[in-house]
Amino acid sequence: MQRDVRQSFSFALTARDGRARLGAIATPRGVIRTPAFMPVGTAATVKAMLPETVRSTGADIILANTYHLMLRPGAERIAKLGGLHRFMGWDGPILTDSGGYQVMSLSKLRRIEEHGVTFQSHIDGATHLLTPERAIEVQCLLGADIQVVLDECTPFPATSDEAKSSMELSMRWAERCKQAFQRMAAPGQALFGIVQGSIYPNLRGESAEALKRIGFDGYAIGGLAVGERQEAMLDTVAVTTAVLPEDQPRYLMGVGTPQDLLEAIARGIDMFDCVMPTRSGRHCQAFTWGGRLNLRNARYADDPSPLDAESACPAARYSRAYLHHLVKCGETLGAMLLSWANVQFYQELMARTREAIARGELAAFAEDVTRRDRASNDTDDGDET
Amino acid sequence: MQRDVRQSFSFALTARDGRARLGAIATPRGVIRTPAFMPVGTAATVKAMLPETVRSTGADIILANTYHLMLRPGAERIAKLGGLHRFMGWDGPILTDSGGYQVMSLSKLRRIEEHGVTFQSHIDGATHLLTPERAIEVQCLLGADIQVVLDECTPFPATSDEAKSSMELSMRWAERCKQAFQRMAAPGQALFGIVQGSIYPNLRGESAEALKRIGFDGYAIGGLAVGERQEAMLDTVAVTTAVLPEDQPRYLMGVGTPQDLLEAIARGIDMFDCVMPTRSGRHCQAFTWGGRLNLRNARYADDPSPLDAESACPAARYSRAYLHHLVKCGETLGAMLLSWANVQFYQELMARTREAIARGELAAFAEDVTRRDRASNDTDDGDET
Repeated sequence: MQRDVRQSFSFALTARDGRARLGAIATPRGVIRTPAFMPVGTAATVKAMLPETVRSTGADIILANTYHLMLRPGAERIAKLGGLHRFMGWDGPILTDSGGYQVMSLSKLRRIEEHGVTFQSHIDGATHLLTPERAIEVQCLLGADIQVVLDECTPFPATSDEAKSSMELSMRWAERCKQAFQRMAAPGQALFGIVQGSIYPNLRGESAEALKRIGFDGYAIGGLAVGERQEAMLDTVAVTTAVLPEDQPRYLMGVGTPQDLLEAIARGIDMFDCVMPTRSGRHCQAFTWGGRLNLRNARYADDPSPLDAESACPAARYSRAYLHHLVKCGETLGAMLLSWANVQFYQELMARTREAIARGELAAFAEDVTRRDRASNDTDDGDET
Repeated sequence: MQRDVRQSFSFALTARDGRARLGAIATPRGVIRTPAFMPVGTAATVKAMLPETVRSTGADIILANTYHLMLRPGAERIAKLGGLHRFMGWDGPILTDSGGYQVMSLSKLRRIEEHGVTFQSHIDGATHLLTPERAIEVQCLLGADIQVVLDECTPFPATSDEAKSSMELSMRWAERCKQAFQRMAAPGQALFGIVQGSIYPNLRGESAEALKRIGFDGYAIGGLAVGERQEAMLDTVAVTTAVLPEDQPRYLMGVGTPQDLLEAIARGIDMFDCVMPTRSGRHCQAFTWGGRLNLRNARYADDPSPLDAESACPAARYSRAYLHHLVKCGETLGAMLLSWANVQFYQELMARTREAIARGELAAFAEDVTRRDRASNDTDDGDET
C-alpha cells in the first residue's frame, strides 16, 4: 500500500484486562494491532524470510536496526534509492531503533561524551560519530515510521550512581532528539522516548517523568533483558508503566520469550521486538503450540507428524522428520521453514493474546501457554542420527 | 495432485526444428513439457527454495540424488514416511539418478567390481555397497517416477580401452537394473538407460545399441561435462542422439550453461538437469535476459534497476542495489532470491526454446541468447563497497 499522508499517528485503546491493554496504532502506512510483536529486520531483511511471508504471518510492523543500516549500505544510499520500505520491499510500518544498543553491544572501541558516541564499526573498523541529531537524521533518511531517541543502554549491573548518570545523559539526548525530529521528520512519523534507569524504581520514575515533560508519541523501555533476572525485569516494567501516560503506546525493547511477553502485557506493555523467533529458527529451535522443540533431536527422525498441527502456518505443516533431515544436513530450507513457523507462532500468540484481553481472560490464557511450554521441555538430547 | 495410476509413462513429439524436438512426457504425476530443465533437489530440497516456489517457476519435474538420500536420511526411512514426494512436499514427477556419479565424485575409498561398487560415505565414513539391484531398490523406495540405471561414470580423460571396458561394465549393470526394475517398480514408473563411452563415437554407438537391445523408457547420456571441451561434448551428443530411438526422450545429464542447453537441444536432447542455477544463486551470480551478473560487484551498490526487467519472476523485481546489499552482508535472503530468479530464468529459457522450436526459429533464438550473454560479461570486478 502507498503511504496515506492524511493519516496521522494515533493510538486508541479498545479494551482492558487488568493492566493489559487491547488497542491499535494508526500510521500512514497502516494499522498496528496491539499488543504487537515486531519481527526484527536487522540489515533490511527479516533473516531467511521474504517480505510477503513476513506479512502473511500477521505482522503489522517490523523493526530495522539503525546501527547496521548506517554502516551498510548507508542511510544516504537508502534514501537515494527511495527509502527503506522500497529498498527492502516492505510497505507496512517500520520502527527503527536509534543505534545506541548495538553501539554498546557490537562496536569495537567506543567513547561516550556529552556530544554523542564515537565508535568503530564492527565490520571494517572505520570510526563513526553518532549524536542524537545524527540518529534522528539517519532514521529520517531511512523513512522510519516510528523512530526512537538515541540513548545509552546502561550496562548491567550498574550502581545506582552509574545508572543515574547514564540515565540523565540519555534524557538530555532525548531532548535533543525531540528538537531534531521536529526539524526533520515528515508528517505522520512518530518519535518514541526511551526510559532508562537500570533496575532502580526511583530512576525509572525520574526517567519516565523527564520524557513525559519533553513529550513523545510513545514510550519505550530500554536497558532491560541485558542480564537481569526475569523478576527484576518484570518489576521494572510494572513500576515504569505505572507512571507512563495511559493514552500512548508502550514498547518493551528486545523482549523476549512467549512467557516474557505475556507477563509484560499483563503489566501494561503494548509492543515488543526480539530476534528470538528468527534466531531460534536458524538454530533448529521451533516454537509451537505444543511447546518448544529442538529439531536436531534424534527423536524426530521418523516422526511423520507436522511441526505444529495447531498452527495455521504453511511451514508448520512440514513433518518433523523432514525438518529434522533438513537441519541435520544444514540445508537453508530448514532455517527458512523454522524462521517462518516461529515468526508466525509469535504473531498467533499476539492474536490469541488480543482475543484473550478482549474476553477478559488474559490470565487463564497465559497460564495455558506456560503449561504447554513446560510440557515439551525439549532440550537437545545430544543423540545424533 | 494425486498420482493418477491410470496414466502410463509416454512420450509424444509435437514439432521439430532441424534435429530439435518439441514434445511432452506424460506420467502418473503430471506432464513434463520438453525440452525440460530439471532443478536439482540433492538432499530432498532444491536448495534455498520452497517446493511451491520451484513449481511457480514453471518446473514440471525435479531431480533428486539417490546417493545423498540413501546415506541421509535413508531410503527405507523415506519409504516409511510415505515416499519422497510426500517427504519433501513436491507432488510433481521426480527423476532420481542412480548414485553412480556421486559415488565417483564424492565418496572416499571406493572399489568397483562386477557385483557393484563398495564405497565409504563422505559424511561419516561408513561402508556401503551399491549394486544395480540396490540402486533400483532405493529408487523404488523413494518412489521416483523416472529412475536411471546404475552406471560407472567413466573418468575423463580415459583411453579408448579404459572407456570401452568401463562402458561394457555399465551395459551389464544396465541389463541387471532392467531386470530388477521389472520386479520392483510400480505401474507408470519409468527406467532410463545411460549411454557411456567417453568421447569415442564408436563406443557411444555401441553403448546406445546395447541399451536399445535391453529396451528402456528413455535414454540418458552420461559421462559428459566431466572436463572435456564443449565441442567434444556437443559432438558426442550429436553422434549419440543420431542412434537413439526417435520416439523416446533423451536426457543429457548434468548440463549446463544456457548455451550448452541450446546447443544440445539443437542436437536432439529433450531433458537436462544441472546445479548451475541454484549453485550460482548461492554464489552471487544471476542469470538474466540481459546476461549474467555478479551481484557482489560494486557497480550495483546504487543501481535501482530490477535484477531482470524482462523476467516474470517476483525475485527478479528486487533492485540490484538491494541484492548487492544482501550478498555483501551474507544474508540468506540473497541466496533465496538469486536461486529463485535463476531457476525461473532456466524455466523461462526452456519455455522460450519450446516456442522457438514450434515456430521453427530455434537457431535465431539461440543466437539471440548468446549475444545477450556476451553483452554482459560481468565477471567479478574485485571492487569492494
